[in-house]
Amino acid sequence: MSKIISSAVILGSGNVGHHLARVLHDRGVAIPEIYNRTTGKAAFTAKLTGSRVNGDIREIMPGADIYIFAVADSILPAMIRQFPHKDAFAVHTSGSLTKEIFDGLIGNHGVFYPLQTFSREVDIDFDGIPFCIEASTEENLQSLKKLAELVSGNVHEVNSEQRSRLHLAAVFACNFTNYLYSVSEDIVTEAGSDFELLRPLINETARKVMHELPHRVQTGPARRGDKEIIKHHMDLLRGNKDLEELYKVLTDQLRHKYRK
Amino acid sequence: MSKIISSAVILGSGNVGHHLARVLHDRGVAIPEIYNRTTGKAAFTAKLTGSRVNGDIREIMPGADIYIFAVADSILPAMIRQFPHKDAFAVHTSGSLTKEIFDGLIGNHGVFYPLQTFSREVDIDFDGIPFCIEASTEENLQSLKKLAELVSGNVHEVNSEQRSRLHLAAVFACNFTNYLYSVSEDIVTEAGSDFELLRPLINETARKVMHELPHRVQTGPARRGDKEIIKHHMDLLRGNKDLEELYKVLTDQLRHKYRK
Repeated sequence: MSKIISSAVILGSGNVGHHLARVLHDRGVAIPEIYNRTTGKAAFTAKLTGSRVNGDIREIMPGADIYIFAVADSILPAMIRQFPHKDAFAVHTSGSLTKEIFDGLIGNHGVFYPLQTFSREVDIDFDGIPFCIEASTEENLQSLKKLAELVSGNVHEVNSEQRSRLHLAAVFACNFTNYLYSVSEDIVTEAGSDFELLRPLINETARKVMHELPHRVQTGPARRGDKEIIKHHMDLLRGNKDLEELYKVLTDQLRHKYRK
Repeated sequence: MSKIISSAVILGSGNVGHHLARVLHDRGVAIPEIYNRTTGKAAFTAKLTGSRVNGDIREIMPGADIYIFAVADSILPAMIRQFPHKDAFAVHTSGSLTKEIFDGLIGNHGVFYPLQTFSREVDIDFDGIPFCIEASTEENLQSLKKLAELVSGNVHEVNSEQRSRLHLAAVFACNFTNYLYSVSEDIVTEAGSDFELLRPLINETARKVMHELPHRVQTGPARRGDKEIIKHHMDLLRGNKDLEELYKVLTDQLRHKYRK
């Protein structure tokens, strides 16, 4: 029988930790404690979730149903080693690290990865966010599944290998995409215009692929092989080495993909 | 006094021509004729707008209040030369071509550029789409403004130089962004997973910049300077030259931008 998780300690109060603490608290899971090296950062979240703040990992409270490590990949291994409750149930939220990172250190463990982008300053609706979970035992998996289903109807069992590929895809679909947005922001700003003009286009570009596959709705000069516009754009970018290179790489790959 | 435009002939029935004909017809502008070299393509649109189909530009009907050239940049100059009504009011919908392309050929002219992406198979809501307009006279400009306001509350007078920079920005924000979506589609498909898992992330990534500026909400390994994940991703991409190059260029530019 899997256990219903009714209390969770959150380790880390960055973007993911902050939003996870909030939504779990909203859905009735007690958040008795939030750990963060910098306690000031944790205090902001803890105020919203009625949690104690803790800045010393050796003093983490015992007895919570689950310990959720929502921290940067680079500091996770060291934190797991310092974590004092070897028989607790602990999960991490990383897209790239394996479940096995807990092996020999914390007996009951798993992964609880929300495939979403979080910014502290932007509120988020968890409903529909894909949760990729895995766990050390079937019982832990079921507990984790119930926890994820409290906040999202979209829960998937995904192994570490597949999760790391999803994370890579997410970097293209989200982080790199946002970088292209910021390039477009720079171009309109420099032209004395306003990013506001691009928002309907950005919105529609995303909306289009909610029901279609991206490769079926590609448009633009490179897709059509329109050499004159491409040349005109390269002329406009002349002198900005980064954007020249980026435009060229993306255009070449698109022309190659669509044989234009 | 500017004239109210109550009839429009559409030249071209590609993605832009198709959707413009539909929306103008919906808002009560008569579309007596649609021209397209391939009349079969025009017939599909003409059926929805009750228009005559014409495949010979020399036979374009006279007397419409406006002639809207919604065709590829590469064929526009030749079409303008062949167009028989030198005293008509004609506009093009191109992001990159100047207004002066009509000089000496069609007296009353302008530009009517919707800053949006159109796919024939995806319905679109014109409300809020930025229309960038310019015209040869103040009277023509006002006529064009009223026409644009029939379909969108978001009309801007933009000169040719600024419009071509907006178009360049749009290529990054839309065409290149969709290419990144299709890269992510390829990665999840190859991992035996489904693009559906990425849709909430894509939606949220766009939603975030509806009220924030992109450079303020950048996240991800390159933004944080997380060398281990970056190395892990490069390992996953090993052997796929295009994606290795693309990942590297985007990551280097992000790290440079955020000095990580």
